[in-house]
Amino acid sequence: MATPLFEAHRELALGNRIVANEGVLDAFGHVSMRHPDNPNRYFLSRSRAPQLVAPEDFIEYDLDSQPIRAPSVTQYSERVIHGEIYKARPEVMSVCHHHSPAFMPLLATGTDYVPVFHLGAVGGIKPPFWDQHDEFGDTNMLVVKPEEGASLARALGKHWMVLMNRHGVTVAGVSVRDCVFRSIYAARNAEYLVQALAVGGSVAALTPGETEKAAQIVTTTTGLTRAWEYWAMRVEKAGGGLPAAKSAAASARRAKPAALAKKPVRKAKSKGKRR
Amino acid sequence: MATPLFEAHRELALGNRIVANEGVLDAFGHVSMRHPDNPNRYFLSRSRAPQLVAPEDFIEYDLDSQPIRAPSVTQYSERVIHGEIYKARPEVMSVCHHHSPAFMPLLATGTDYVPVFHLGAVGGIKPPFWDQHDEFGDTNMLVVKPEEGASLARALGKHWMVLMNRHGVTVAGVSVRDCVFRSIYAARNAEYLVQALAVGGSVAALTPGETEKAAQIVTTTTGLTRAWEYWAMRVEKAGGGLPAAKSAAASARRAKPAALAKKPVRKAKSKGKRR
Amino acid sequence: MATPLFEAHRELALGNRIVANEGVLDAFGHVSMRHPDNPNRYFLSRSRAPQLVAPEDFIEYDLDSQPIRAPSVTQYSERVIHGEIYKARPEVMSVCHHHSPAFMPLLATGTDYVPVFHLGAVGGIKPPFWDQHDEFGDTNMLVVKPEEGASLARALGKHWMVLMNRHGVTVAGVSVRDCVFRSIYAARNAEYLVQALAVGGSVAALTPGETEKAAQIVTTTTGLTRAWEYWAMRVEKAGGGLPAAKSAAASARRAKPAALAKKPVRKAKSKGKRR
Amino acid sequence: MATPLFEAHRELALGNRIVANEGVLDAFGHVSMRHPDNPNRYFLSRSRAPQLVAPEDFIEYDLDSQPIRAPSVTQYSERVIHGEIYKARPEVMSVCHHHSPAFMPLLATGTDYVPVFHLGAVGGIKPPFWDQHDEFGDTNMLVVKPEEGASLARALGKHWMVLMNRHGVTVAGVSVRDCVFRSIYAARNAEYLVQALAVGGSVAALTPGETEKAAQIVTTTTGLTRAWEYWAMRVEKAGGGLPAAKSAAASARRAKPAALAKKPVRKAKSKGKRR
Repeated sequence: MATPLFEAHRELALGNRIVANEGVLDAFGHVSMRHPDNPNRYFLSRSRAPQLVAPEDFIEYDLDSQPIRAPSVTQYSERVIHGEIYKARPEVMSVCHHHSPAFMPLLATGTDYVPVFHLGAVGGIKPPFWDQHDEFGDTNMLVVKPEEGASLARALGKHWMVLMNRHGVTVAGVSVRDCVFRSIYAARNAEYLVQALAVGGSVAALTPGETEKAAQIVTTTTGLTRAWEYWAMRVEKAGGGLPAAKSAAASARRAKPAALAKKPVRKAKSKGKRR
Repeated sequence: MATPLFEAHRELALGNRIVANEGVLDAFGHVSMRHPDNPNRYFLSRSRAPQLVAPEDFIEYDLDSQPIRAPSVTQYSERVIHGEIYKARPEVMSVCHHHSPAFMPLLATGTDYVPVFHLGAVGGIKPPFWDQHDEFGDTNMLVVKPEEGASLARALGKHWMVLMNRHGVTVAGVSVRDCVFRSIYAARNAEYLVQALAVGGSVAALTPGETEKAAQIVTTTTGLTRAWEYWAMRVEKAGGGLPAAKSAAASARRAKPAALAKKPVRKAKSKGKRR
Repeated sequence: MATPLFEAHRELALGNRIVANEGVLDAFGHVSMRHPDNPNRYFLSRSRAPQLVAPEDFIEYDLDSQPIRAPSVTQYSERVIHGEIYKARPEVMSVCHHHSPAFMPLLATGTDYVPVFHLGAVGGIKPPFWDQHDEFGDTNMLVVKPEEGASLARALGKHWMVLMNRHGVTVAGVSVRDCVFRSIYAARNAEYLVQALAVGGSVAALTPGETEKAAQIVTTTTGLTRAWEYWAMRVEKAGGGLPAAKSAAASARRAKPAALAKKPVRKAKSKGKRR
Repeated sequence: MATPLFEAHRELALGNRIVANEGVLDAFGHVSMRHPDNPNRYFLSRSRAPQLVAPEDFIEYDLDSQPIRAPSVTQYSERVIHGEIYKARPEVMSVCHHHSPAFMPLLATGTDYVPVFHLGAVGGIKPPFWDQHDEFGDTNMLVVKPEEGASLARALGKHWMVLMNRHGVTVAGVSVRDCVFRSIYAARNAEYLVQALAVGGSVAALTPGETEKAAQIVTTTTGLTRAWEYWAMRVEKAGGGLPAAKSAAASARRAKPAALAKKPVRKAKSKGKRR
């Protein structure tokens, strides 16, 4: 019988596959979730393309983004994006970092994001920009140091999305599904906004009042359930569905070796240098 | 043996899947039809992504968009778009509401739709715009109140398409196939128009005379049959075909429980608040 | 055993499917070929989406676009496009009429087509425009009358492509494969040209000398064979491959009923009014 | 048992299929590799679409792009692009020549390529342009003469990418995977850059320092492995996977006939005239 945690891992794995299948993630980017039973922990996949992530791939991290057990696999290097946001925003339960093509023209030109249709309200009005160069000078643009992640989390502030100049976007949500919905529909809105700007003329955005009200559609209506069923069907049709649920016992067995490790192993950190 | 009504439901379900498969609908939006035997009723799916709609999903509504029988499932919240148009336009037999990406740049910039090729004539010349904010101020942009739907229907007037600022589009037709054809080819035309505007220079549209004549292609030629066969094939190839026709008896059985309900249940209305 | 003519019909059917599968044709448009053994005849499919055309669907026409035998099926209405070009251009062995999205921005703005890369040379430099309205006033934009087809053929002149304002494109070739190659790569070039114009700045086209030399790549290199094998593989992968070759005898049998008709049947012409 | 060379050929074949499956190559373009055991030789497929290339298709060439054995199959005509770069750049182990749609607007307008996100750094800052017309006047734009290839190699200089005006792009790498990664992510960056330019306003590129550091991500992180696994999965899902590995003996047998040829056959060169 599958445990609630294993079910949560399946949901997170499917979330990764959905955001990739909808074209917001490619070989890079990731969706994480806070540990449902322990606010000081979060789960993020081992280093692999999100469209391939399986429930067994998740590594448990503390909020300093250190693995709880020595992973026998390589890790994403940008995990501090997740850890520092979970540290700064207790209500955030899921984080997505992506390089969506739809946002790139905005990120390259420093053009503000505004909602041009009701579902785009999930990204807010003019969410903050963050440029790694301002505080850290020339880097390889990856957010790998705790202070880099903390700086990004400060820029995010109370928003649900922060635009990373010449890099990508980071989205927060109150659940995996909420985060997935915000990531996908903010990307759709960005695509429409870019096309509207290319057409020329002035762009009419939602008013602050409309944005506040429309942003609640995702959490207060059946729209989220409807969209999730739709996206999951599309993942299945694309041949990217998850294998049938494995028993919790089996998944526990898989977890065993790592479980034997007594304490965080520094080797893990060095591995973290990779991306 | 399948009844005519069940066949009509299959056609409407396929219509929903076609418009979604052609990229005009995604997780949201819907295609409805007036009851073929009762002009004071219409059919609209329960709340689910149009690409997944099946003949058994349709709920029967009166023109005030109240369900005839208490539905045991969730409903779309924007059904008044359909009900109020059927009320105002007796010749309209099918309505499609969508958020086509192709239209978004026009809806965000308030740019007029004009036909730039013969098949785009189905959208008319400069169809009316409607902005929910003008009459109703800050809302969540969803058309859920009867007066909101009635206002939209007034804006549609005698046209076949109304552009909803910063939201989407609503299309009317004399049959499900006509409505599907108008929805898809108006979206194609919008896409070409947006690209033409990005190229710059002046856009040459069809003349009023050409538009009137070309708009009849859909109803007076074999083009509609040809397009429907093509779109249905594409739905099949995408793995989204309808299951084989079920017997009317079976479908009647499925309908039974709801049929036991004596009168409209208010609970249904509250459910309507969802989207 | 399949006859040469049946093989030619298979090639033409595959050509129709290829041009559609590459996104140049949709539910509308068609590819025809001149009768390999009789220059005064040509073959064009019955009225159906090109991606569905099978070898058995071809109707034999004279150069006035009248069917040699009374067809028991509906016909395309724009067949005079093909007949009048075969009449005017003896060296043309295949014609494609399409409404490629890539060309629409050029057709809506009257922007000249120029080759921006070597393979785009197959479309020539600034091929002629033709506007049905100039000579025929307000029509439904369809080229159905012999004089309309003749006017279009005059506009084509000695070129291989004519741009039909606010409608589409007609392409000629010395073989089905040549016509398919020109149709697809001219559309690719149009797409790149439109994007280049959106970027702004001046567009550098091939010189007349480069265009003449590059246009011969298709007929003088292995590129055409390579492209055809590639496109046919893509049609197969998309699930749109032709059924295995049927025997000529079988196909002859299929042709029989129509063959019994003594002379052209006027009813066929009225059918031609349809599209 | 498969030999290392046969494994290398499988990797190169998959590399060709990946770059095509990601939309950077179509029926044209090719990826080659230097002979792992002999720096004076390289491997390039026979003339066929890259998405169809199999391990058995590779022809062994000397750096003058002459086949070591008389090929019984047609050859690409632009192989001197590869040979002359291997001659000029000893550290280059793989070369990709493509006509990516993403680059066409830049190549048509002579707009500089700049990295607008970290992964675009693999293309460098303002890589050189090369126009065949400058040195060779009117040609069919194909790079077929040794002096044309040498001129292109000079233009490439110490860069990893050279932009060929009104033609395409040539990319170099230190391995097949490095070359594939550079080809795909430079194309993604070009796409974002073109959209950013269409939006208008000034484009903010990576600084020289950021570009240098970010360009090392591909060779110093697990990102390359992650991306390769992802792209290979996508090729499989698209139905374009390689057949199971054949034994080296079998592949040797296939090679035999050609192996019997005593010396380069001039006929091969004439064949090279084709493309």
